[in-house]
Amino acid sequence: MDRLEFIRNLKQPSEEKIVLLVLDGLGGVQKNRKTELEAAETPNMDRLVKVSEAGLMTPIMPGITPGSGPGHLALFGYDPLEYIIGRGILSALGIRFPIRDGDLAARVNFATIDENNKITDRRAGRIPDEINTKMCEKIREIIIPGIQFFIQTEKDHRAALILRGKKFSENISETDPQKTGVPPLPVHALDNSSETAVTAELINQFLEKVKDKLSNESPANMILLRGFALFPKIPSFEELYGLNACAIAGYPMYRGLASLVGMKVIDVESGVEPQFDRLRELWGKYDFYFVHIKYTDSFGEDGNFEKKVSVIEEVDRNIEKILELNPDVFALTADHSTPVIYKAHSWHSVPVLLKSKWSRHSYVKQFGEKDLQTGSLGIINTLDLMTLIMAHSGRLAKYGA
Amino acid sequence: MDRLEFIRNLKQPSEEKIVLLVLDGLGGVQKNRKTELEAAETPNMDRLVKVSEAGLMTPIMPGITPGSGPGHLALFGYDPLEYIIGRGILSALGIRFPIRDGDLAARVNFATIDENNKITDRRAGRIPDEINTKMCEKIREIIIPGIQFFIQTEKDHRAALILRGKKFSENISETDPQKTGVPPLPVHALDNSSETAVTAELINQFLEKVKDKLSNESPANMILLRGFALFPKIPSFEELYGLNACAIAGYPMYRGLASLVGMKVIDVESGVEPQFDRLRELWGKYDFYFVHIKYTDSFGEDGNFEKKVSVIEEVDRNIEKILELNPDVFALTADHSTPVIYKAHSWHSVPVLLKSKWSRHSYVKQFGEKDLQTGSLGIINTLDLMTLIMAHSGRLAKYGA
Repeated sequence: MDRLEFIRNLKQPSEEKIVLLVLDGLGGVQKNRKTELEAAETPNMDRLVKVSEAGLMTPIMPGITPGSGPGHLALFGYDPLEYIIGRGILSALGIRFPIRDGDLAARVNFATIDENNKITDRRAGRIPDEINTKMCEKIREIIIPGIQFFIQTEKDHRAALILRGKKFSENISETDPQKTGVPPLPVHALDNSSETAVTAELINQFLEKVKDKLSNESPANMILLRGFALFPKIPSFEELYGLNACAIAGYPMYRGLASLVGMKVIDVESGVEPQFDRLRELWGKYDFYFVHIKYTDSFGEDGNFEKKVSVIEEVDRNIEKILELNPDVFALTADHSTPVIYKAHSWHSVPVLLKSKWSRHSYVKQFGEKDLQTGSLGIINTLDLMTLIMAHSGRLAKYGA
Repeated sequence: MDRLEFIRNLKQPSEEKIVLLVLDGLGGVQKNRKTELEAAETPNMDRLVKVSEAGLMTPIMPGITPGSGPGHLALFGYDPLEYIIGRGILSALGIRFPIRDGDLAARVNFATIDENNKITDRRAGRIPDEINTKMCEKIREIIIPGIQFFIQTEKDHRAALILRGKKFSENISETDPQKTGVPPLPVHALDNSSETAVTAELINQFLEKVKDKLSNESPANMILLRGFALFPKIPSFEELYGLNACAIAGYPMYRGLASLVGMKVIDVESGVEPQFDRLRELWGKYDFYFVHIKYTDSFGEDGNFEKKVSVIEEVDRNIEKILELNPDVFALTADHSTPVIYKAHSWHSVPVLLKSKWSRHSYVKQFGEKDLQTGSLGIINTLDLMTLIMAHSGRLAKYGA
């Protein structure tokens, strides 16, 4: 039986309101001291967890470290091994490009090449957004017969490229050699289909034109393309869960992921207080509020224990702003762990609490990795969170007579 | 998505060293007293578990008792419901027979039959190895046109038979009626294919010749055949994980299982100290060391509480020999439980600890079944252990952008 079909068939309407608060990369690992979450002073979360379902979640499967795409797809209830979101699509969504079925997207890096066509800087000295924007304008002057293309600044040296108008293939190699001193790689077909051959040829021609166009520029005189990806077909939150959902996320990638599953992406400044305030302003308009806080992950990747702790404490100090709205279901969790000792996404399970009027209690006294090991949920798969949320909000009918 | 393909695609190289120490049948069950592991004095394991990932593992699925084959396949990360290793293949591997694709293997028991062809002893009085060897020599004089066969002493009344040179089928019935007072059973085809018919016919002819050949012998005047199995195709540890692995195991079956997944089988005397010493001698030569201690299982099957406890304590006393090598990942677990009160393999989950520099801590204070229920890993599937080991040793790339 198809899992999503199963859920869709059981869904029933409800007026109950749901908040899913995701602290990106929240999970940590002890090493001669507590984890970031255990060390943080979180009186509100600790009070909350005592009356919530509590536990840990495995993002993908034991040992597998998720990227942001798979991590969020799992949180949203889509099997990340079945629904694959390429980096190019994430970039396109991040710049709010109205991407559609058939489009091929790629991640662009502006780079510097020397007179022998060798890369001297894979990020063109991390050019400011203004230069990036100018270079994109220049590239837009290029004409490729028979197709449309869109290129738009993302941030710093990064941009997104979208091709439209032909039957494309995503099965082509990247042009970034991942090192300097060598020329950009040509695009190769990775299968034998005619679409793939056509796509590869077309992109190679485009890249030649880009090179000519930027030949007098400095430092951004070439582009590197990565993460070619076609627009994926994913059933929307509305279709799958009957949820009218919105995303209160400051960062492009998470806004993009949310829009991919049909959430309304809200304009908001990135930060705990502005995001929580925005939620309050919108309260009542949506069934489901996805709130994404980025900085726990950023400071985890920096290996900055104190800063990661301080973001968690900031969330805790402000969490009452959400709770006093009395959401029928409140879930607090993460897409993956980013332990400060590991300085990167990791495979470790993530803390979760789920509060509703139907939440079973546990012995957990503190919202921390160690305590949560004795929680009411045990260690579940992240993929199962949405079904639990649906159940707690009265949106899933009984299965079978 | 194919699970092994998924893992293979994420694997990345690393220099980190891994030790997987398996205490066969370690798990126990309380009955008016602690389990064997809980009762054992294990100060070193208890110290270790406090800084390790800890928990329990379900070998196959809840309620399913594994044989040694499935138990170890799961430990090695191969789904035991997909990769089936017949007993015959295990026997052939156990005697270090260079088995290859297309070979059909069977487990041989020398038995005693009376003048009416009825079995009087299914183990021929557990003949010593010398008699077994002599009987095998006699059987080798038999000629079966068109095929080659190999028969070789395993131990006591047991031997291995391998057939080569035809397209065989393993889908045939066994000849051991599992009781005395009746004749050996003829081999029957279990499907309608012509290979199966030919294989059954051929083995029945062979058994007639064996009966003639041994008719004047005593007590071993017949053989019983069990566990017909074709050589299985399994991706190797090197291919799947990129691991250069060795097996430090004293018993033939475990040596065989290890060689089946491409581990180098090391010559070693069976026993905690000689096996640990051998590991030390080989340190640095391999990426992955599988150390298999048999006696926990043997004493579990005997129902000998004190002896099983003493093996566990012997391991604990010597474990520092391994730990002082500073393996990057050290995992201690079992293939299945063999509770002394049950005197056999059982379905109960097995203790596990996994120590690396990235191991999350728990409240577990003692390496025992009761304490481990509150561990950081919860109760995982044994199949997921290798993926965790790979992650902890830096050998798995992030999944998705």
